[in-house]
Amino acid sequence: MRKICLIGMGPGGLKYLTAQAIAALRKVDVFFLLEKQGRGKEALGDTRHRVLDLYRGPGAYRVVTAESPPRARAQDDYLDVVADWHARKAEIFAALFDEHLAEGQTGGVLVWGDPALYDSSIAILRRVQAQYPGRFEVEVTPAVSSLNLLAARHAIPLHEIGGDLLVTTARRLLAGAAKDHESVAVMLDSNAAFAQIAPEDFDIYWGAYLGTEHEVLASGPLGEIGPALAETVRREKQRLGWILDIYLLRRRHVTEPAS
Amino acid sequence: MRKICLIGMGPGGLKYLTAQAIAALRKVDVFFLLEKQGRGKEALGDTRHRVLDLYRGPGAYRVVTAESPPRARAQDDYLDVVADWHARKAEIFAALFDEHLAEGQTGGVLVWGDPALYDSSIAILRRVQAQYPGRFEVEVTPAVSSLNLLAARHAIPLHEIGGDLLVTTARRLLAGAAKDHESVAVMLDSNAAFAQIAPEDFDIYWGAYLGTEHEVLASGPLGEIGPALAETVRREKQRLGWILDIYLLRRRHVTEPAS
Ligand SMILES: C[S@@+](CC[C@H](N)C(=O)[O-])C[C@H]1O[C@@H](n2cnc3c(N)ncnc32)[C@H](O)[C@@H]1O
Ligand SMILES: C[S@@+](CC[C@H](N)C(=O)[O-])C[C@H]1O[C@@H](n2cnc3c(N)ncnc32)[C@H](O)[C@@H]1O
Repeated sequence: MRKICLIGMGPGGLKYLTAQAIAALRKVDVFFLLEKQGRGKEALGDTRHRVLDLYRGPGAYRVVTAESPPRARAQDDYLDVVADWHARKAEIFAALFDEHLAEGQTGGVLVWGDPALYDSSIAILRRVQAQYPGRFEVEVTPAVSSLNLLAARHAIPLHEIGGDLLVTTARRLLAGAAKDHESVAVMLDSNAAFAQIAPEDFDIYWGAYLGTEHEVLASGPLGEIGPALAETVRREKQRLGWILDIYLLRRRHVTEPAS
Repeated sequence: MRKICLIGMGPGGLKYLTAQAIAALRKVDVFFLLEKQGRGKEALGDTRHRVLDLYRGPGAYRVVTAESPPRARAQDDYLDVVADWHARKAEIFAALFDEHLAEGQTGGVLVWGDPALYDSSIAILRRVQAQYPGRFEVEVTPAVSSLNLLAARHAIPLHEIGGDLLVTTARRLLAGAAKDHESVAVMLDSNAAFAQIAPEDFDIYWGAYLGTEHEVLASGPLGEIGPALAETVRREKQRLGWILDIYLLRRRHVTEPAS
């Protein structure tokens, strides 16, 4: 057996790693990094190297890098496109593990944030396992997600007392997912989808580049700050060439006029 | 100003603290621990002391302890009862801060899991702040939640590809919250609420006492393992006198028979 450790690094910066993640990092023989295509890739790649330099020592670890395959543009065939992309990534990982890991060795894959939230690594490693039964053991190390960090920065709970939290994507927000929900966390946006929903219904707690030196925060009634915030998103994207942003929409309690 | 650091410890054990949480712990002058009433209180209190012994050194920190006020039994007045309980806790905290923290000092409050998920500390400290404007600064340190750990242990993502995640309570599950959702995480149960919903619709990924020496995991189609799992919940509660359990319900994809 070869062991693959999927290690959550937390949402940016070096200080979000848990003691468990640091211990896991230290047992890895070879790290496998797929280089992301597109904007923000330097930031992600750079964070992974800074994490390894800090917790393993510069030059004291082995890294194998491969280009991440490009993802086809999806329309209605979103699920097929993603499944195909996962399958190609699984092939790449399987070939790399085969070439670079000896029997009994441990491979490491570093994940931004928590591995269970909007990251494909778990699904991909499960494909690798299914394709080569009995060859790979997978161990996942949980981490602070950008969602936890958003709430901490604003010092708010993610839900109302005893209430629900819906965690969703900008794509699904635009498809109406927030309907009937009090607390809605939105990820994978970067195009100010919040500006396209009924603004009078919600307060927004927004954050970009959380935990990094570029961090920006904003909060307030969506109707009041929405337009300026959409402008901030555009400006920040232009400035850095990419954005990572996340927000919580909290339904405003309407006080009924006395009848 | 006095500073209050609300520090997430992660979901059990000592290894889930982040580097940031450990650094925050080390800057605290006085820790304020409200002793929980009821079952599991020893486990929680004990974890807090073990965390402080490990990261501060035994005897090398100041702790002020108070009894947490009992919560009235809620029925339809759930929100009022909780608000009243928060108000009483806020009074206790404010008095303790006043008595034990000098100007410029830092108080610490340790939270199980992530402070933003089903924990009242943020709401309570905001009340303290609102009652004494300009006297207290609050800083929240995010943490791995039991939800992240559940997913890691089962090596599953929390949502389907591009899909939503609903995070809810057993109380709301029984009120129908899972309807129309694919992925539903349930917290605050301990009475096997999963056994009272349509079992054929879901797979369940369940875990109790995660990250502790008592950890138990189970997963499978709810229709098949639900009854035995409800029995496990009863047995474990009897054995230890308390249970902390969490689960993900994932809607099963029904393959329509060809017509
Ligand atoms: C591919 S997902 C990865 C999420 C990650 N696994 C986590 O747990 O945070 C990327 C999305 O996460 C959110 N995100 C991740 N890191 C962030 C950060 N540092 N600041 C703001 N949003 C972030 C954004 O919504 C972004 O579109
Ligand atoms: C009062 S809430 C606190 C949640 C905590 N703030 C977090 O982020 O995990 C307690 C609930 O969290 C879940 N929980 C917390 N720790 C857990 C653990 N170690 N194992 C299983 N469930 C846990 C259970 O659903 C429990 O009823």
